[in-house]
Amino acid sequence: MAEGCDPSLRFTDVSPLENAGPEHVSFLDNRKYIPAFQASKAGLCVVTPEMAAKAPAGMALLLSPDPYRAYAHIAQAFYPAQAPEAGIAATANVDQSAVVGEGCRIDPGAVIGAGARIGNHCHIGANVVIGKGVVLGDHCTVGANATLSHAVIGNRVNIYPGVRIGQDGFGFAMGPQGHLKVPQLGRVVIGNNVEIGANTTIDRGAGPDTQIGDGCMIDNLVQIGHNVQLGRGCVIVAQVGISGSTRFGDFAAAGGQAGITGHLKIGAGARIAAQAGVMRDIAPGETVGGAPAVPMADWLRQSAILGKMARKKG
Amino acid sequence: MAEGCDPSLRFTDVSPLENAGPEHVSFLDNRKYIPAFQASKAGLCVVTPEMAAKAPAGMALLLSPDPYRAYAHIAQAFYPAQAPEAGIAATANVDQSAVVGEGCRIDPGAVIGAGARIGNHCHIGANVVIGKGVVLGDHCTVGANATLSHAVIGNRVNIYPGVRIGQDGFGFAMGPQGHLKVPQLGRVVIGNNVEIGANTTIDRGAGPDTQIGDGCMIDNLVQIGHNVQLGRGCVIVAQVGISGSTRFGDFAAAGGQAGITGHLKIGAGARIAAQAGVMRDIAPGETVGGAPAVPMADWLRQSAILGKMARKKG
Amino acid sequence: MAEGCDPSLRFTDVSPLENAGPEHVSFLDNRKYIPAFQASKAGLCVVTPEMAAKAPAGMALLLSPDPYRAYAHIAQAFYPAQAPEAGIAATANVDQSAVVGEGCRIDPGAVIGAGARIGNHCHIGANVVIGKGVVLGDHCTVGANATLSHAVIGNRVNIYPGVRIGQDGFGFAMGPQGHLKVPQLGRVVIGNNVEIGANTTIDRGAGPDTQIGDGCMIDNLVQIGHNVQLGRGCVIVAQVGISGSTRFGDFAAAGGQAGITGHLKIGAGARIAAQAGVMRDIAPGETVGGAPAVPMADWLRQSAILGKMARKKG
Repeated sequence: MAEGCDPSLRFTDVSPLENAGPEHVSFLDNRKYIPAFQASKAGLCVVTPEMAAKAPAGMALLLSPDPYRAYAHIAQAFYPAQAPEAGIAATANVDQSAVVGEGCRIDPGAVIGAGARIGNHCHIGANVVIGKGVVLGDHCTVGANATLSHAVIGNRVNIYPGVRIGQDGFGFAMGPQGHLKVPQLGRVVIGNNVEIGANTTIDRGAGPDTQIGDGCMIDNLVQIGHNVQLGRGCVIVAQVGISGSTRFGDFAAAGGQAGITGHLKIGAGARIAAQAGVMRDIAPGETVGGAPAVPMADWLRQSAILGKMARKKG
Repeated sequence: MAEGCDPSLRFTDVSPLENAGPEHVSFLDNRKYIPAFQASKAGLCVVTPEMAAKAPAGMALLLSPDPYRAYAHIAQAFYPAQAPEAGIAATANVDQSAVVGEGCRIDPGAVIGAGARIGNHCHIGANVVIGKGVVLGDHCTVGANATLSHAVIGNRVNIYPGVRIGQDGFGFAMGPQGHLKVPQLGRVVIGNNVEIGANTTIDRGAGPDTQIGDGCMIDNLVQIGHNVQLGRGCVIVAQVGISGSTRFGDFAAAGGQAGITGHLKIGAGARIAAQAGVMRDIAPGETVGGAPAVPMADWLRQSAILGKMARKKG
Repeated sequence: MAEGCDPSLRFTDVSPLENAGPEHVSFLDNRKYIPAFQASKAGLCVVTPEMAAKAPAGMALLLSPDPYRAYAHIAQAFYPAQAPEAGIAATANVDQSAVVGEGCRIDPGAVIGAGARIGNHCHIGANVVIGKGVVLGDHCTVGANATLSHAVIGNRVNIYPGVRIGQDGFGFAMGPQGHLKVPQLGRVVIGNNVEIGANTTIDRGAGPDTQIGDGCMIDNLVQIGHNVQLGRGCVIVAQVGISGSTRFGDFAAAGGQAGITGHLKIGAGARIAAQAGVMRDIAPGETVGGAPAVPMADWLRQSAILGKMARKKG
């Protein structure tokens, strides 16, 4: 809610606190930036009610219990998602048996294989390679130099540059005379409204499919092994590795560089701290940290005890 | 061995336990999937003799001490490796001085530099870039958008999409006035029957060569620094980092996200746990975990002690 | 300084100790290689004065307090950086509104977008994709299959194959009904004399810019989140992850696989050990290790105490 704002105020853009001027909308979401907030020249700032009293004179405030989310709505209004300018580049290489929907843009050097089906209003970046039979829904974006194979992908999926989807998983029988490759036969099935960060790798299933649920947010350089299943709305931060056949329930989250071994069940809403090493199932809603991962409170206590012992000896 | 099977049984495909029907061959290799085994409608299942008694009625069994390996052989029979359909795409860019063997397939947008030599029956994916003078043996596959330079590669090597081989290593003399780059002059030499996972990076040697032995299995997003040497049959799981000049003996293995510092010797058959941080030489056959890595039994004991102390305080 | 060398000596190349012959210059920088030094047939070796007495008979020595740096100068003299052979490949796709400087080489399949500006003597590798409006200084190299967007880049910057610069950062408001993407509006601004390793990802700023200072050395598979600022001369080893809005002071360094959470200040000259997990600000010049990261001496003591306790119990 805005309290007593001058209704004639007009704003032309969003801007971070440090750079904003009177014509800009900004936000404060982290107490570390209170000094920047207090020094900011932003015309309007989205803040929690608790922060209102710290605002500099003359700044209009928009109060929200979740300023970052409110700011997201405002910024989206200034920068609405735009449909790509339709057209197929002369140097794109679209197989005659592939089907490309209406309003798609296919950039130079992109390669689309036999039998692939691209939905409407998709943007296929330059030098992307889409293998035979891949299915892509509507309003998808595939960043430059990404590669897709053995995949069925929903609507409004953003695939960032350099992503690798659908290659063989790491499946072989080890043996002292040599390792024996196990043919990888499954697909990667991705829901709607998913983001997949740059240079992330998602392997096709070995037999079952690898599955990514609706609304998952996956950061850069993440590894997702064969047969992994992510439920809806999972958040996977950069450089996480999820080993084969592990399943995440809806809205489970893993912090940066966490590693999860194979064949585990991570419950819905579970939270895995950055760099944690998960070697057992995690209950729904549980928060874990450390390696091997333990309940978060235990991990913090372990760290405190160790710190204390080291200081005593020191 | 199959005990008393009906010799008239016919199977048409392999399938995972959960999806299999009477016409399918499946396998059980992990006790976590005993319930799926017991509920499976697979016509034939490969299991250890110990699991035979748990089989559902009517399922034929193939007993093996290593069901995964036995299944690998069966699946390979259903899905034999296929030679690529030969041909050079019109938009591939093969330098006139490059030599391409018989039966090769070169996909659109691939670039092959001066003096490169590609063996017989290789498949070079779309938009791959192979630098000048690179040598590739027979029956190799290079996935889409991979790049190779300064490399000599054996036969039957599978390079996955987005792999980077042969770029300069991270070599420079640090200094407070600026860092001074050290010219990188070596190659990457790769043996036969090697797999290199998506978006993995293998740097050329600084002076000596970086070497990957026969039969190594390397997963996605692995970093292999300059001058590293892997012996035969090493297994390197996703997101492992191996720093410069470290040497792995034959059949040594590193679990996901493990980090190994430079100039170390990892003995033949040594096993490094996931996320371990190795800062010293590892003896042949030794198993280590933790960071800094210690013998596995010590690491497990450390974790147990810490857990106990934290619970006491709690 | 060279002590009493025969001034008629001539050397034709540099070479590692193990392979060098009388016509080669080599160096010794790590005590682990003293045996290789003593067995080497190198004609000239750069060593510290302390090592001189261990040299094999007949080897000429060049004494330096920093042999690696001295060797770097020598190797650069043998292998000077070469300007690329100018020319734009017929299959490169340069937008009519892009400006390409003098003496540039643009390899096959490269795509350069509208309004991009490439400085003089740059080498743009095959299948590189440079987005609209990107600015690149002089004497830059962009490795094959890299992608750049929303970026302003200085002079003498080496971007390795598969690097991703300028894609959206991982910015969204989490919510139980779905995550809401926050438009990413900033750029990536990179100084002069920077190296960026293969398959590394650097996200554009959310509102402010992501900034990489002059002379930074960044290894392979590094993740740099939105709004991160690196000062001058930072050294970021492979697979490090730096979360959004964290700032590194000049010449700060992070070892391989270290993770740094968001919104932190890492002081000038601070050193972060490999695999460390940094969750608080680090003072200038401080050295930290462990996860959560603590002063290095504390971390070593913690490890020693844990090791001792585990051995007692064992």
